[in-house]
Amino acid sequence: MTDQQTFDIDSRGRGTTQITDRVSAIVRATGIETGLTNVFVLHTSCSLILTENADPAVRADLETLARRWAPDGDPAYQHRDEGDDDMAAHGRNILAGSSLCVPVRRGDLLLGTWQGIYLWEHRSQRHRRTIVVTVVG
Amino acid sequence: MTDQQTFDIDSRGRGTTQITDRVSAIVRATGIETGLTNVFVLHTSCSLILTENADPAVRADLETLARRWAPDGDPAYQHRDEGDDDMAAHGRNILAGSSLCVPVRRGDLLLGTWQGIYLWEHRSQRHRRTIVVTVVG
Amino acid sequence: MTDQQTFDIDSRGRGTTQITDRVSAIVRATGIETGLTNVFVLHTSCSLILTENADPAVRADLETLARRWAPDGDPAYQHRDEGDDDMAAHGRNILAGSSLCVPVRRGDLLLGTWQGIYLWEHRSQRHRRTIVVTVVG
Repeated sequence: MTDQQTFDIDSRGRGTTQITDRVSAIVRATGIETGLTNVFVLHTSCSLILTENADPAVRADLETLARRWAPDGDPAYQHRDEGDDDMAAHGRNILAGSSLCVPVRRGDLLLGTWQGIYLWEHRSQRHRRTIVVTVVG
Repeated sequence: MTDQQTFDIDSRGRGTTQITDRVSAIVRATGIETGLTNVFVLHTSCSLILTENADPAVRADLETLARRWAPDGDPAYQHRDEGDDDMAAHGRNILAGSSLCVPVRRGDLLLGTWQGIYLWEHRSQRHRRTIVVTVVG
Repeated sequence: MTDQQTFDIDSRGRGTTQITDRVSAIVRATGIETGLTNVFVLHTSCSLILTENADPAVRADLETLARRWAPDGDPAYQHRDEGDDDMAAHGRNILAGSSLCVPVRRGDLLLGTWQGIYLWEHRSQRHRRTIVVTVVG
């Protein structure tokens, strides 16, 4: 059995937004007991990540690291169409990814105690992001 | 239902080759309407990535970033069997990954307007790379 | 058809432990001939990776690179609850990921000659890690 749902989320510019609850609600509604969930974002300048859901300082520190991994406005970039954060966002997207797979057990996401699913916006400005959830089982 | 196809591609040395059309053709031929596609490369020195499909400067800038993420010929490397680009390629492979999952909708890949699927060769020389496409739905 | 199994592994602190054989045994036991395997770790401070399975120097060099990607005890980190390796481990986890998808063919994992599946512990101390294997086909 396969089910698929799409939803939009408005990011608030660079930073993380937890979406665990929204994805979990979609998985529970499918009625699939055991299987696999894929969460996918239809964009190349934001990411979906699993990370620690307790201390918000973890996500702040990920921003600190990401500024080093793919700096804004680096003079070596050729792609600058949409400003200093444009190529930096594509670089962060490659490192953190566009998609997650999470197991389904007993009709819900199977996550560790400290794992949360986050949309990580890499652009400075707000963007409407479309997320596709596919459940196979 | 599950279907699986394999194809080879000759990279031209370090850089990206778009494979969206080849993967899409395999997905369409399966007849699966809704599901999940996995694209997987059987190697540890190249990657499969989703990135911007419009401006080629984005992929050039990804090379610029990757040279910093995992420099060629770094004096700290112990693994140098096949030259300066050998360990650099394994490091880039860890960061950019070996595999992608993309949703299937209406019998084809569901991608955003600006998303393309690329083989990213991390070795300097040409290599024949084998890619496995698995469609579940 | 879907099958799912869980196992625990005791890491020896920072470094890699090969788990290809354990995952392969689970896949073979399912009887699924063609499909997709997801391997998922229920933690945010270790990773699952595919990398070269021949020369152990490759994994040693990955540690060298990871020390630069997310340094221990960086003065910029706000999250320091569990020591110098705490935030470094979360950063490495984002880069190397929590999960892998590997094709299944002829009833077993389909891997390249040089690909092995490893648990990569990012914390300095030993930890018991729970791994979930989901096979769909």
